[in-house]
Amino acid sequence: MDPEAFLDLANQVVKLKMYPYFDIAHSVLCALHVREDLGPGAQAFSRKHPMSCWLSTMLVVFAGGMLCNGLLGEPVLAPLKNTQQLVVATVVWYVIFYTPFDIGYKAAKFLPIKIACSGMKEIYRCKKVYDGVTHAAKLYPNAYIIMILIGTLKGNGAGFTKLFERLIRGVWTPTAMEFMQPSFPTKACIVASVIFVLDKKTDLISAPHALVYFGIVIFFVYFKLSSLLLGIHDPFVPFENLFCALFLGGIWDALAKLLGRGGNKDEKADAKKKD
Amino acid sequence: MDPEAFLDLANQVVKLKMYPYFDIAHSVLCALHVREDLGPGAQAFSRKHPMSCWLSTMLVVFAGGMLCNGLLGEPVLAPLKNTQQLVVATVVWYVIFYTPFDIGYKAAKFLPIKIACSGMKEIYRCKKVYDGVTHAAKLYPNAYIIMILIGTLKGNGAGFTKLFERLIRGVWTPTAMEFMQPSFPTKACIVASVIFVLDKKTDLISAPHALVYFGIVIFFVYFKLSSLLLGIHDPFVPFENLFCALFLGGIWDALAKLLGRGGNKDEKADAKKKD
Amino acid sequence: MDPEAFLDLANQVVKLKMYPYFDIAHSVLCALHVREDLGPGAQAFSRKHPMSCWLSTMLVVFAGGMLCNGLLGEPVLAPLKNTQQLVVATVVWYVIFYTPFDIGYKAAKFLPIKIACSGMKEIYRCKKVYDGVTHAAKLYPNAYIIMILIGTLKGNGAGFTKLFERLIRGVWTPTAMEFMQPSFPTKACIVASVIFVLDKKTDLISAPHALVYFGIVIFFVYFKLSSLLLGIHDPFVPFENLFCALFLGGIWDALAKLLGRGGNKDEKADAKKKD
Repeated sequence: MDPEAFLDLANQVVKLKMYPYFDIAHSVLCALHVREDLGPGAQAFSRKHPMSCWLSTMLVVFAGGMLCNGLLGEPVLAPLKNTQQLVVATVVWYVIFYTPFDIGYKAAKFLPIKIACSGMKEIYRCKKVYDGVTHAAKLYPNAYIIMILIGTLKGNGAGFTKLFERLIRGVWTPTAMEFMQPSFPTKACIVASVIFVLDKKTDLISAPHALVYFGIVIFFVYFKLSSLLLGIHDPFVPFENLFCALFLGGIWDALAKLLGRGGNKDEKADAKKKD
Repeated sequence: MDPEAFLDLANQVVKLKMYPYFDIAHSVLCALHVREDLGPGAQAFSRKHPMSCWLSTMLVVFAGGMLCNGLLGEPVLAPLKNTQQLVVATVVWYVIFYTPFDIGYKAAKFLPIKIACSGMKEIYRCKKVYDGVTHAAKLYPNAYIIMILIGTLKGNGAGFTKLFERLIRGVWTPTAMEFMQPSFPTKACIVASVIFVLDKKTDLISAPHALVYFGIVIFFVYFKLSSLLLGIHDPFVPFENLFCALFLGGIWDALAKLLGRGGNKDEKADAKKKD
Repeated sequence: MDPEAFLDLANQVVKLKMYPYFDIAHSVLCALHVREDLGPGAQAFSRKHPMSCWLSTMLVVFAGGMLCNGLLGEPVLAPLKNTQQLVVATVVWYVIFYTPFDIGYKAAKFLPIKIACSGMKEIYRCKKVYDGVTHAAKLYPNAYIIMILIGTLKGNGAGFTKLFERLIRGVWTPTAMEFMQPSFPTKACIVASVIFVLDKKTDLISAPHALVYFGIVIFFVYFKLSSLLLGIHDPFVPFENLFCALFLGGIWDALAKLLGRGGNKDEKADAKKKD
């Protein structure tokens, strides 16, 4: 592929229109997520509490926008003003939960369809991260941490509203905090936000913006597909372990343990007792 | 009653001033609600934790306004700036919880007084729903769902802040989600919001605005009184059941069960095993 | 000390620059608070969930600002835009949790250092209460209750976000509501807010502003130090008890009990049964 055609392709990806196909893909995966989160009782729940089911699905679909608006002092409900998106999300919710013989759900779970939707959702996610970073940069031109936070929350909002979304369905799981065990999409969004911030605010990245954007899209889609098809769930783990060992006490803890055994009398005695 | 006098009456109801009598009635019922929610230990609790008791009562009294402000990006505390209302609410709270020999509480629970307060509260509720819809329509002229949401939340805010209000009192009941089992006032507020939106935004309702408003007031008051006096708690249930059967899978589920037994071999065997 | 020199000192205290020393002291105590709240597993937790640990520490450091912004309809994340403060807080967090051999934590817990930090934090707290009251007074010139609320929340924000801060670490303690059992800093902040409001809005306090401010600083520091050194935890308790006895039913309850035994037949019988 010659570089010019590649750049052309990248430019097209940057300008891709999200409505309606990407919105549909996103909504399908969100509704699937809610349905799977409900477990085996999903169908019975959707019949008994349609309102709570609809609301929690909408919360997942619009999670990023609502969360970021809330944190930036903008109206939390504003994302719902886009009637077209809302209608798409509602139709998808209806199809996933209420079609006769569960055709909608079964179709959405069919692997090729799921893969196509996942790929499109990742392209959408990249756009959302970029929009989040840009929006935050407009409001706070020097607050890098806010840009990264907003980019991450907009890209993977559903992960962070999970607690509240479940609460709407009457389930409370305080230990399912995304910050405790960040999932791969969260980490990927953090990395993407950092790259976008570097691209926007510094001269460290000399590549044209479209290429940077396209690179992140490829990175998102590639790891999503490898997670779906090959079962590689988190390529960041080795880097994290290295970082933790170097900076977050790993080496020093090991050293302290070692020295404690050799030098400190009390701890030595203590260690002996334990042995 | 001749139509002109009726329209006149309707116009007067639309322009009714809420302060102070309706505010008092609303506060009385809110304080009663908090006291009854506390159960048999209410008096002991009010002596031990007056601050938490006062705050949760204020939250119930101003629930609708605070909730809607929070969702529309306006200051959550703004409803408290109305010092007169705040003073009324505080005095009522004091009378319900701390009068000697519990006179205040007993008086408020006396049926005729409770009925009068309930009626006034419903008139107030109608005004709040209307104000909510109008306010949302000003901010988002085309977002019908936001208008309905804000109207409902403003009309029955206390239902939706129940979780948080209890949390202020140190009690956590995640399953008491209003969305899971919407109460009658919530459903009535949804219907009223929809009617107000239709009245405002479409030409479907040709009656003058005052009549529509007055009709909803009568509907609210009538069902509140029948709930208090006759024990009719939810006249919407038959309509809901019909709607669920038609659109939310009821009929299809029954059909699928039937066909499943007749056609699908595996499920047939499965069904036999269960028998 | 002659009055003029005293007033001079007071004026200097009013104009004291907070960055960086007071910020450091504040951050040190916040990080210590998080670490102690984590209990014996703090070090293991900080190794396993660095992100959640960092976020909850930041939430404690910036609690007051974030909480008040949220309640006043301003961006919740805005306090993070101050990059210098954020860097200070992050460095302190790193030093407390991750220095080799836990030097940072041990140094911060060393009594003289802790006392110095506590004193500085109280000076900082006074400034925050004053800023909160001033800010609220600008927005709502007649809403005294909002000024007091904002002053209190800004002065002791960490007390009120404790639930949410623990939730970020995956721990849910709904009964640890600050409103239920207000701690001494909360009560002191309420008193300080009331005094600032009186000073600002009425003519009841004739002393110059700098003196009022300085008096509250001394009051804060004095009681913090006596709490740390002498174990006097809450000098407000006697006043509260008096107030509760007079106004919140104490006397009437006792009277009702007495009369109930003497006069009311049913309750008498009831009382007998219980005996």
